[in-house]
Amino acid sequence: MDDYSRDELGEFFKRDLFAAKNGIEIVKIGPGRAEARMNVTGEHLNAVGTAHGGALFSLADFAFAMAANSGGQVTVAINVSISYFKAVSSGILTASAREVSGGGRIASYTVEIRDEADDLVALFQGMAYRKREMLKDLI
Amino acid sequence: MDDYSRDELGEFFKRDLFAAKNGIEIVKIGPGRAEARMNVTGEHLNAVGTAHGGALFSLADFAFAMAANSGGQVTVAINVSISYFKAVSSGILTASAREVSGGGRIASYTVEIRDEADDLVALFQGMAYRKREMLKDLI
Amino acid sequence: MDDYSRDELGEFFKRDLFAAKNGIEIVKIGPGRAEARMNVTGEHLNAVGTAHGGALFSLADFAFAMAANSGGQVTVAINVSISYFKAVSSGILTASAREVSGGGRIASYTVEIRDEADDLVALFQGMAYRKREMLKDLI
Amino acid sequence: MDDYSRDELGEFFKRDLFAAKNGIEIVKIGPGRAEARMNVTGEHLNAVGTAHGGALFSLADFAFAMAANSGGQVTVAINVSISYFKAVSSGILTASAREVSGGGRIASYTVEIRDEADDLVALFQGMAYRKREMLKDLI
Repeated sequence: MDDYSRDELGEFFKRDLFAAKNGIEIVKIGPGRAEARMNVTGEHLNAVGTAHGGALFSLADFAFAMAANSGGQVTVAINVSISYFKAVSSGILTASAREVSGGGRIASYTVEIRDEADDLVALFQGMAYRKREMLKDLI
Repeated sequence: MDDYSRDELGEFFKRDLFAAKNGIEIVKIGPGRAEARMNVTGEHLNAVGTAHGGALFSLADFAFAMAANSGGQVTVAINVSISYFKAVSSGILTASAREVSGGGRIASYTVEIRDEADDLVALFQGMAYRKREMLKDLI
Repeated sequence: MDDYSRDELGEFFKRDLFAAKNGIEIVKIGPGRAEARMNVTGEHLNAVGTAHGGALFSLADFAFAMAANSGGQVTVAINVSISYFKAVSSGILTASAREVSGGGRIASYTVEIRDEADDLVALFQGMAYRKREMLKDLI
Repeated sequence: MDDYSRDELGEFFKRDLFAAKNGIEIVKIGPGRAEARMNVTGEHLNAVGTAHGGALFSLADFAFAMAANSGGQVTVAINVSISYFKAVSSGILTASAREVSGGGRIASYTVEIRDEADDLVALFQGMAYRKREMLKDLI
């Protein structure tokens, strides 16, 4: 897996303002794969004091989006299923996305979120639809 | 459906720092039901300029959490499936959660996200697990 | 909702050999809607003596397929999420499918399975992809 | 992974009448893992002539049930998400289930269905709830 995080694909995804605002960072992007990272702080917590389901989802979704668009074709999420296994309230979480099926108009990705102990925090399964436009047409 | 948004349940959910940071507000909370709202601004957008899947998910998840915890028992998400139907880049979105099944340890909620034209933007189906603690024990 | 079950759409779906073998019957088909029925007998049970998750899924999936194809365009399932609420071991189950979003290439349907007491047994959320062919081209 | 298919766990799952009726067979069962197999014939087909979504689901669900119950504790499905990647109309399909998270009351399993060319036909993600009873109490 090549590290494309400093090239134009990485530059493109730095335009994601929602990810940036929530402290979600690109680790690396490769063909059909991507990793993102989030340091869980007070502002990611819900009312019961654990990382908000939406924060975990957003981290995984960002890795999913980068992996799904890594070929340069605009690809948008149509459905996601996420399962939560471990509550966390601090520490660095890493989301790793990989393509499960990608040949046609519909593509599918699995994203694992793991904590610093390498425990599985959440499992995310995303389906996406490839549009005809290319990312470079949007810039 | 009673409007409990100013009472202690509403107060409890105002402790959700992730929701607050992302402009997600309580509309109302009732037994097995809740509504939340988000005004989509630049900071909710992804790299292609539409509302981030994570922002939409977080809005729905907040309504889900309020509905699931509306009985006062601590109830945590275990699995969610979300489908996206319409891309949005501005305007007020409202998420309405209602209980589909809730008698036992496992409860299930449907959340609809609609825009100002009342179009369905996303449909969220959440399963949750009721713990033995009560929310008041956490305060 | 019109009852098209005796017309050509109903005839088309009677070709579903898997449904027929498992005692799954058409109740009615209308635009974006359909109902199917199954009388739970010994042959639908799993090893613990309750209706097999696959039998419940197959019932809902048949209603989903009829609703999704009710416009005459070949539409195939790409993703389904199903939640189970009540174990059953006998009686008639009815699956009612309705379109949630249907305008484009991707369409979405909700299917409820209810028992004779009208209790919700399972909730099924299906996404489908519309192909260019028409059902009549397949006959 | 041990092959327990001839021992009492295998005997227990041979009681699954729905699986038997639909030609779904046990390949092997081990701790947190199981494999099942189905030879796709005419009776597994839907109205458009491909393997019915319900037949594919049932195959995966049977492997899921065996893996989830492999520890001897009664474990029931609460939610499943399935994605379909390749239409098939004949040949032997194999479903391989493995535990993703299993320590507590809620456990999660991934099941892959592959055809004879080892292509991924469907991906199944199942959540289950562990009851207090043991399988041997049911016999």
